[in-house]
Amino acid sequence: MAGTMTVKLETRNQHRCFDGVQSYYQHHSEIIGLPMRFSVYEPPQVQEAGGQRLPVLFFLAGLTCTEETFMIKAGAQRYAAELGLILVSMDTSPRNTGIPGEADDWEFGTGAGFYLDATESPWSRYFHMESYVTRELYDIILDRFPVDPERVGIFGHSMGGHGALTLALRHPGHYRSVSAFAPIAAPTQCLWGQKAFSRYLGESPANWRKHDATALIESGCRLPIPLIDQGLNDPFLKDQLHPGYFEAACQQAGQSVILRRHAGYDHSYFFISTFIEDHLRHHYTWLTSNGQ
Amino acid sequence: MAGTMTVKLETRNQHRCFDGVQSYYQHHSEIIGLPMRFSVYEPPQVQEAGGQRLPVLFFLAGLTCTEETFMIKAGAQRYAAELGLILVSMDTSPRNTGIPGEADDWEFGTGAGFYLDATESPWSRYFHMESYVTRELYDIILDRFPVDPERVGIFGHSMGGHGALTLALRHPGHYRSVSAFAPIAAPTQCLWGQKAFSRYLGESPANWRKHDATALIESGCRLPIPLIDQGLNDPFLKDQLHPGYFEAACQQAGQSVILRRHAGYDHSYFFISTFIEDHLRHHYTWLTSNGQ
Repeated sequence: MAGTMTVKLETRNQHRCFDGVQSYYQHHSEIIGLPMRFSVYEPPQVQEAGGQRLPVLFFLAGLTCTEETFMIKAGAQRYAAELGLILVSMDTSPRNTGIPGEADDWEFGTGAGFYLDATESPWSRYFHMESYVTRELYDIILDRFPVDPERVGIFGHSMGGHGALTLALRHPGHYRSVSAFAPIAAPTQCLWGQKAFSRYLGESPANWRKHDATALIESGCRLPIPLIDQGLNDPFLKDQLHPGYFEAACQQAGQSVILRRHAGYDHSYFFISTFIEDHLRHHYTWLTSNGQ
Repeated sequence: MAGTMTVKLETRNQHRCFDGVQSYYQHHSEIIGLPMRFSVYEPPQVQEAGGQRLPVLFFLAGLTCTEETFMIKAGAQRYAAELGLILVSMDTSPRNTGIPGEADDWEFGTGAGFYLDATESPWSRYFHMESYVTRELYDIILDRFPVDPERVGIFGHSMGGHGALTLALRHPGHYRSVSAFAPIAAPTQCLWGQKAFSRYLGESPANWRKHDATALIESGCRLPIPLIDQGLNDPFLKDQLHPGYFEAACQQAGQSVILRRHAGYDHSYFFISTFIEDHLRHHYTWLTSNGQ
């Protein structure tokens, strides 16, 4: 813990939703050195629980998204309210860093932080999304919201599905439940990942593999059985996502995985909203049992 | 019917959603004289029904919204898929008319068609949203989608709640079920309505009253019992919406109305998403019974 009880959280908006509260916050991030925004949905059990701490799920969004996207489009609050889950989402990169060209490209830079800590200049100055999500924001949520630190899950979409898998693999014990929608499951083997990793991490293949879910499985890392949903009409499936590579690596390594392929579904939040209930129930089951 | 079987519908996007299909269309509107966009959600029963025609609900969105807003934010598809309802939404005004200043103001002109046919120049050239919704789009939907013409409902939000109430009152028999979220329920008595009506309709109070739900009730018009939800933390409640005026007029006139006031809820789609299930069930009940 980094003394986050004193972090100043600016409440940007609050909305009542399914008898809970949807909030948007901004704060100065010590790790990034700039303002960052995140969103929290607190279900009605927060008021009712009488001091009881609730499970929390961190949702990592995809390329071009913000801390608002998931909360607006996924329809998750209904199930969070039913199950008593706190939901957290965050922006997908630092913004307004002043780095030339930061927003020239929708798949790199602004809106495309890839949930890693950049080591290459100029990006290494601000692009520390892994530390932000796993340390600074994690601590803020655990300190400032009625969260049970033993019941923390992570999930995400596309670039954020990559983030959910890799952060769970790289921080064992941090996240007790994991799921993903259409994750970039082998980023070292697709153009999105190669472009981002070469500029954020340099050219060393060994460094790339530390942020590739498939390679991490091959390297011996393990994670709670992830639920992964993939639409078969997803325009990015063939060239960018490669969930089958991840599945094969898991099979080879003896890591259980639930990969569901859905005919007709694409990469949009219409796909996510269809299966969001299953994901929240998956996390709920893992976080309220002993993970068996 | 206006021979809409030959209208060319350009499919802009389609997404699988809850085993149904979410579609966005554009077409040349004869009534407006410009391209118009609308959205349709077809539940899975469209494929299963074997020729059976389904109930349809028209959703009218609020100021600044488009044909996409409701479909993205309300979370309605889940319940439409369960109940077997087709959903339709449309843009909130003509766009790119070339009228000077059309988009200078968020509460008038572009995105603010108020679901009426303008009589005053220059707006009368294109702003014919009442005829578009009740005739042209209505006919397209009934001709081109597997809809039961005897089971058509209408609902909306804010300006679109005004639209739902007034169109149901002005077109008896057209809509068999009605509901609204935070409607502008007495537009002649609020600044939003006064500004729009004076510019679209001129200065005659008699013409204004033909497009004011409260005044229409006072004038003897009736509608199927509407379900109206209103958040008590809605920033527009006090000055713009006036659901209590509508309720009082209904009580005076012997028109039944269900007006529910919800502590803590505001004007956003977080409010709508919380109560959308109740609205779809309200319509379903009215459209699949004899409206008792």
